Amino acid sequence: MSRTSKDKDEPTTEGAESVFDAPARQLLRARRPDGAPVGPADVDPRSTPGFTGDKVEGKAALAARADRLAALQELLYARSTREAPDGSPAPSVLLVVQAMDTAGKGGIMRHVIGQMDPQGVDLKAFKAPTAEEREHDFLWRIRPHVPGPGRIAVFDRSHYEDVLIQRVRGFAPAEEIERRYGVIRDFEAELAAAGTRVVKVMLHISADEQKARLAERLERPDKHWKFNPADIDERALWEEYQEAYRIALLRTDATDAPWFVVPADRKWYARLAVQQLLLETLEGLELEWPEADFDVEEQKARLAAS
Amino acid sequence: MSRTSKDKDEPTTEGAESVFDAPARQLLRARRPDGAPVGPADVDPRSTPGFTGDKVEGKAALAARADRLAALQELLYARSTREAPDGSPAPSVLLVVQAMDTAGKGGIMRHVIGQMDPQGVDLKAFKAPTAEEREHDFLWRIRPHVPGPGRIAVFDRSHYEDVLIQRVRGFAPAEEIERRYGVIRDFEAELAAAGTRVVKVMLHISADEQKARLAERLERPDKHWKFNPADIDERALWEEYQEAYRIALLRTDATDAPWFVVPADRKWYARLAVQQLLLETLEGLELEWPEADFDVEEQKARLAAS
Repeated sequence: MSRTSKDKDEPTTEGAESVFDAPARQLLRARRPDGAPVGPADVDPRSTPGFTGDKVEGKAALAARADRLAALQELLYARSTREAPDGSPAPSVLLVVQAMDTAGKGGIMRHVIGQMDPQGVDLKAFKAPTAEEREHDFLWRIRPHVPGPGRIAVFDRSHYEDVLIQRVRGFAPAEEIERRYGVIRDFEAELAAAGTRVVKVMLHISADEQKARLAERLERPDKHWKFNPADIDERALWEEYQEAYRIALLRTDATDAPWFVVPADRKWYARLAVQQLLLETLEGLELEWPEADFDVEEQKARLAAS
Repeated sequence: MSRTSKDKDEPTTEGAESVFDAPARQLLRARRPDGAPVGPADVDPRSTPGFTGDKVEGKAALAARADRLAALQELLYARSTREAPDGSPAPSVLLVVQAMDTAGKGGIMRHVIGQMDPQGVDLKAFKAPTAEEREHDFLWRIRPHVPGPGRIAVFDRSHYEDVLIQRVRGFAPAEEIERRYGVIRDFEAELAAAGTRVVKVMLHISADEQKARLAERLERPDKHWKFNPADIDERALWEEYQEAYRIALLRTDATDAPWFVVPADRKWYARLAVQQLLLETLEGLELEWPEADFDVEEQKARLAAS
């Protein structure tokens, strides 16, 4: 048995051409090339930008590209194990996922993030802040979870809750919310300067689709545990939330920390689109396997003698 | 489109019969039913206890049971969202994985742990302790990572390093190592009493297989980053490590925190066996979907009006 050929079940960075007819990083960006902002109101939640296939094809594409996503993540991690010749910091990725309830964050985590090796991915779900967290400024609980070198951090909710629910519910005064947009911009620019690729996704569903998904949770006894009566209270504030998202995207979209509005009424499309955004982000790093920092022949001789 | 029927790609707890001819929790246990200890020397690293199929069948079985593992993990998580009628703590699982270098810990994480929803799994890799960690007693860095209610924590290396490498390398005096076995027993008994199912796995490879795997890392440029010259130094202490494992298993195997010796010269078998141990552990909890803690019909009416 040859040990120098690749195992068939190993991830490969080859093949798996894009199934999108243009880069998702352009198609889904919360800003047009001319600089005009794109908010949730400009995007049809049932649309499938850049992908002409149907649900069956979309699911097949998601599965077909799992190995490539896993391979690129491994390359990112491998890169962090050796110092770069130019001393630049090892790159990392921060994926922020924000959405209304039932928009499919959980499915993204399970079906897209779950395609990567859990050893290289740090998933953090931010719940309502604790009493201790509320005593600190809003980024205090966020900072410990930014990605280390070579790692992919995923935020299920994030510091954006502090300008979304906090704005809509009036938990913080208007001038404090204003301050936070600037603080967030500085924070994300700091991350980008230190080598982190920041990718921010708003999963965009319609109020009707949310109603159908909540109804399903109430119909099925095996979904009751996912239902929270408070979710219905939040629905009454739908338009306020859309407006809060519009402002947050407008104020915090940046070249080094772009927002993407991902139509999410079709779960399969949202998953494929987030996978595509990750693929494009990792491909953009143009990573190579790091060189050995030891003498390979010398180590072969030592191993043979061991 | 009916929303009350299950999506085809949703995990199901049905089907997927065991492919083992006896429970892996018996076959692989580091103690015979009569109480006699089973150490690494008693287990052939190339054997495949309980599974009569070959590599192709083993890989197929691993893939076929991914959905069941994911479904049981979801059930564990769901259970933690509602208080038990008898007030008992929500169960959780702690999987400890220990092994010599190249034994396949990474593959277990990727191919078995990666089958579960990353939202419910906390994977922690313990590296050499930092200066700060060394200032504290050895469990200080471990305790923050024990699983919360409904969660599955996985330790890639663990507090057992403190009685393995530390014993072999003489980093701690003999009486201190002695003390630690007792401390570990108390710690794991405490976890078990609080509802955590502790499962401890030693991936057991042969020295020859390790040599072949290290040689592969030296042959392939895309594997060089995984190679560390210090791995060869450790090989010189192979027998001392086997003895340290034997003693650790003997002193810390317990009904509420059992050790399993998993033959690991065949990667596919080791993965299938660890998957089986997790399946049996989760099945043993006999979990059901929790009941709604709200009035379902009332919420349906509220939703319809929203």
